[in-house]
Amino acid sequence: MSLFVQKYGGTSVGSIERIQHVASKVKATWEQGHQVVVVVSAMSGETNRLMELASSITSTPAPRELDMLLSTGEQASIALLAISLHHLGCPVVSYTGAQVRIHTDQAYGKARITAIDTDKIRQNLATKHIVIVAGFQGMDAEGNITTLGRGGSDTSAVALAVALKAEECQIYTDVDGVYTTDPRVVPKARRMDRITFEEMLEMASLGSKVLQIRSVEFAGKYQVPLRVLSSFQPGAGTLITMEETKDQSMEQPMISGIAFNRDEAKITLLGIPDTPGIAAEILTSVSDANIEVDMIVQNVSKEQTTDFTFTVHEQDCQAVKSLLQKTVQHIGARDLIVDQRIVKVSLVGVGMRSHAGVASKMFATLAKESINIQMISTSEIKISVVIDQKYLELAVRALHTAFDLDAVD
Amino acid sequence: MSLFVQKYGGTSVGSIERIQHVASKVKATWEQGHQVVVVVSAMSGETNRLMELASSITSTPAPRELDMLLSTGEQASIALLAISLHHLGCPVVSYTGAQVRIHTDQAYGKARITAIDTDKIRQNLATKHIVIVAGFQGMDAEGNITTLGRGGSDTSAVALAVALKAEECQIYTDVDGVYTTDPRVVPKARRMDRITFEEMLEMASLGSKVLQIRSVEFAGKYQVPLRVLSSFQPGAGTLITMEETKDQSMEQPMISGIAFNRDEAKITLLGIPDTPGIAAEILTSVSDANIEVDMIVQNVSKEQTTDFTFTVHEQDCQAVKSLLQKTVQHIGARDLIVDQRIVKVSLVGVGMRSHAGVASKMFATLAKESINIQMISTSEIKISVVIDQKYLELAVRALHTAFDLDAVD
Repeated sequence: MSLFVQKYGGTSVGSIERIQHVASKVKATWEQGHQVVVVVSAMSGETNRLMELASSITSTPAPRELDMLLSTGEQASIALLAISLHHLGCPVVSYTGAQVRIHTDQAYGKARITAIDTDKIRQNLATKHIVIVAGFQGMDAEGNITTLGRGGSDTSAVALAVALKAEECQIYTDVDGVYTTDPRVVPKARRMDRITFEEMLEMASLGSKVLQIRSVEFAGKYQVPLRVLSSFQPGAGTLITMEETKDQSMEQPMISGIAFNRDEAKITLLGIPDTPGIAAEILTSVSDANIEVDMIVQNVSKEQTTDFTFTVHEQDCQAVKSLLQKTVQHIGARDLIVDQRIVKVSLVGVGMRSHAGVASKMFATLAKESINIQMISTSEIKISVVIDQKYLELAVRALHTAFDLDAVD
Repeated sequence: MSLFVQKYGGTSVGSIERIQHVASKVKATWEQGHQVVVVVSAMSGETNRLMELASSITSTPAPRELDMLLSTGEQASIALLAISLHHLGCPVVSYTGAQVRIHTDQAYGKARITAIDTDKIRQNLATKHIVIVAGFQGMDAEGNITTLGRGGSDTSAVALAVALKAEECQIYTDVDGVYTTDPRVVPKARRMDRITFEEMLEMASLGSKVLQIRSVEFAGKYQVPLRVLSSFQPGAGTLITMEETKDQSMEQPMISGIAFNRDEAKITLLGIPDTPGIAAEILTSVSDANIEVDMIVQNVSKEQTTDFTFTVHEQDCQAVKSLLQKTVQHIGARDLIVDQRIVKVSLVGVGMRSHAGVASKMFATLAKESINIQMISTSEIKISVVIDQKYLELAVRALHTAFDLDAVD
């Protein structure tokens, strides 16, 4: 007998038929003798519907009251799933975040979980009940309802799995696992059976939207195995786990996957004086405006001036441009160039640590396709390059093949 | 400075525009320096929508989970009203039933309020906040969400008014008060400025659907003045209060209002033996089937047999007919007659206590219109007659004029 936390997202509970389908899946796990705690999101579209009601009153709804409103979405889902399971003859009980006591701070709309009381759930599991918990929501120290922000249901599920020391936290979605890269770009992309938390974090932060970064970080920190599976298709999905648990008898591949991000823009300041404090001055004004900077590259100095390049989300690039006008004049830069027609491509893999030559093989592969590399950045398990976005498909397919990731037909 | 509990029903908060209208009314009361606690229902149609979702899974949804589902309707309303008031610049806080701690028993779907914690509300009122509370819902001793049944928001409002010792509990509806009779039947019907709890109970139980009987009983028991007003039109509405507070200097009218009920059916057992225990045998089989009996009349005995007549809700009359087939044979009754083409007309008024001759005036008025009286029943503040339903309008209009209830143009 194992304890599983299963999380079903909005698409998985998007209609009464789908809720009934989820109920039959949960029942099947329970009938195998396992303990099951189910976390559900609001029915797809419901959170947007509620947001629109609030927005039709004001563009800045009172945060406490907006959380009061939005939390009804998950509450309706847990009740409907509980009604379905009860109808299938299963003993079941549903709880809101406040009822479980999922304690959070008071940051309405983006609250963080601080603690979870598990007594009630453990009592219910001991009497063979299926326990359903509303995702995305909790309660602050004063009893106010809080929400964890979009994607918060994944976080709820992982936090419950941690608190209950679950065997696995299973995230049911509309994809059947994590792929070596986006199958829409590379038809030969392959579903991975396993991936490490670190790799998943890099893949997620680079635009593989299967899981919320926060929930992967959380699961990794507390070492709760996460599994991504499809609500609609059978299959074992992808297990996200610690490096140590990977099969030690097999040589690890150098690269686990290829991620890419089309949403960045490149900002270059040309001909700035190569004196201490310049980079800090530039980045401080950007970060003061709450704009996140991703890659940062500074070339070696030529004749006391240098070029400074960084990337931001493309929706921020006009704001950055305005922000830096004054800085450009102040530091005496020659020019400010914004380029949105770029893409970042990254190789991700813990195997990279023990294999030299990943970078050289990557650059050679791109060179062979005559793709110019504009920026390079590396971390322990990742190498990222910025290239012209018109080469995206060509680059990812060539790398996918070069690093032996292609599915074998 | 007074403390008012204001309750707005589903129609009053049926759209974002209407919620904003309610917000402006609440703000106006608050700006006069009063303390305001607002109780709201779900937006009209929402409870039915949620019921339909549950019904599409099963015709017998788990009661605990149905309450979990239905309670989201009021929760969305309180949040939207709080967002509207906050947008108007008012300090405001909303609470679910569980958050206030409206304690109830565990009778899901028809829970009864056992106690209300007022500390939190009093603290908020002390800091000039408007407090919004979800109607229709509470929490049992184990923290499960319960609902009070249809119309439960009125009960929530009265219970809060009692617990907070409010000056008045104001029930905003889509009518502008309580009328001497149904204005659709009698165009000259007049809005009453005041009515006693007892009279209101009789009016309500006879089909004047302005207020739930339960909330009137509750308010009467704890002597909290209730006021019925329109959400949409200005006006003082009707104050429901204790007899003692009526203006003592004016002579009370004999009759306050005329109620009627089209929904009853008359069951007559002809020629039953006039021996002890027969009436009990008949009524026991009916009440064992959970069917409520209203009026009961037994004629004087003729030749050792008698006729026994009672009324039930017309939707129960087929069930009663089947139930009594055996009884009819067993007691040797001559016949069983069911008549659905009847209506009950009642004069209601506390003034009746001190005025003789109400009954004779009523019977004379009906006789003058050649209306035959089939059954008569009286209580301290009510006289009811059953007549052929085709005479309903004629009877009510004639009585309305005879007892000086007509509006003066």
